[in-house]
Amino acid sequence: MLIGKVIGSVVSTRKSEKLIGNKFMVIELAAQMNGNGGGNQMIAIDNIGAGIGEFVLVATGSAARIGCDMENAPIDAAIVGIIDDGSRWM
Amino acid sequence: MLIGKVIGSVVSTRKSEKLIGNKFMVIELAAQMNGNGGGNQMIAIDNIGAGIGEFVLVATGSAARIGCDMENAPIDAAIVGIIDDGSRWM
Amino acid sequence: MLIGKVIGSVVSTRKSEKLIGNKFMVIELAAQMNGNGGGNQMIAIDNIGAGIGEFVLVATGSAARIGCDMENAPIDAAIVGIIDDGSRWM
Amino acid sequence: MLIGKVIGSVVSTRKSEKLIGNKFMVIELAAQMNGNGGGNQMIAIDNIGAGIGEFVLVATGSAARIGCDMENAPIDAAIVGIIDDGSRWM
Amino acid sequence: MLIGKVIGSVVSTRKSEKLIGNKFMVIELAAQMNGNGGGNQMIAIDNIGAGIGEFVLVATGSAARIGCDMENAPIDAAIVGIIDDGSRWM
Repeated sequence: MLIGKVIGSVVSTRKSEKLIGNKFMVIELAAQMNGNGGGNQMIAIDNIGAGIGEFVLVATGSAARIGCDMENAPIDAAIVGIIDDGSRWM
Repeated sequence: MLIGKVIGSVVSTRKSEKLIGNKFMVIELAAQMNGNGGGNQMIAIDNIGAGIGEFVLVATGSAARIGCDMENAPIDAAIVGIIDDGSRWM
Repeated sequence: MLIGKVIGSVVSTRKSEKLIGNKFMVIELAAQMNGNGGGNQMIAIDNIGAGIGEFVLVATGSAARIGCDMENAPIDAAIVGIIDDGSRWM
Repeated sequence: MLIGKVIGSVVSTRKSEKLIGNKFMVIELAAQMNGNGGGNQMIAIDNIGAGIGEFVLVATGSAARIGCDMENAPIDAAIVGIIDDGSRWM
Repeated sequence: MLIGKVIGSVVSTRKSEKLIGNKFMVIELAAQMNGNGGGNQMIAIDNIGAGIGEFVLVATGSAARIGCDMENAPIDAAIVGIIDDGSRWM
């Protein structure tokens, strides 16, 4: 899993039916998780209720679909936890 | 998922039978999604009807096959949504 | 999927039984697909009949096994199409 | 698999139910495993009982879920072994 | 698949039960496979009997588990062939 900060969300009106009802959060990876230098972002589904500015645990790949009971949805990243002491990852 | 801009398409006459009928769009990843510096592109199947210049949500890996009801096709990336406010990602 | 140029092949006499009968092509990724700078190569199975110098569509991950009807073989990349206008990707 | 050093852990009180009872260890990849330069970290589940400072073998992707008997959990990295001669990887 | 050179092995006494009996080889990716500059290594299971100094074909991801008949083991990389003309990849 990776740790990142929730920095916003995106809206997609025209999308796969299987994605309806999901929130798409913009995640900025913690610098420690990103060997290429700053700024790497990804979009993750949120079923935990993370807010902007929170540091979260993101699961990627098939773990995001299967581990979040959306086995048949086109999802490859999901927020699966909120880090208690996020300030350590700024 | 990643966000990218549809910048074109490719045609493949000789291809896997399982790919017949699909459109192959050229996606340029948004700079924010690409820690290596500009220019990274990938090819994604499009079932949403995205047009050139639109910013889209791309699912990668097994999510592209299974989440798009093409479980047995050799597909590892698919456009699964069109971003409403694409200008933010230019 | 990624686009690359077929630049050669490799021979492996001692290999997994499940790989017998497959051709292993050396693929050089198109510069546009390779944010790290030139030269990234991978080995892909070829069931399409691509020739040296042709630009091809490569599917990676589980899509290569499952999408090419070799579900139980240790294959993580496969040529799944030949690009009609390859010169664009040189 | 990758080799990394356990450098700490993270706590997540609000998380997926399927993750309850797991420990989330912070892994710093060995320099040899990290072509981008130092510092790349990831979060892995630990079922082996690794301690801070130990060098461990980390399995990623579906191998982490399926190989650790947590097929339905949103887990994409797991500690699967402790390296006997860790000093070699410092 | 990727090509790399077998440069050693690692021993793990405390490990997942499902890994017992496997050899863990240290693979240094061929420079052509590694756009980030020299030195990237990974650990792969060996069922082919590769020796130190040999150049091998490595399958990654679910292909390593499923293609090597270890579907339930936490394995994400496996040596699946030995390259006949390894000198080309030095």
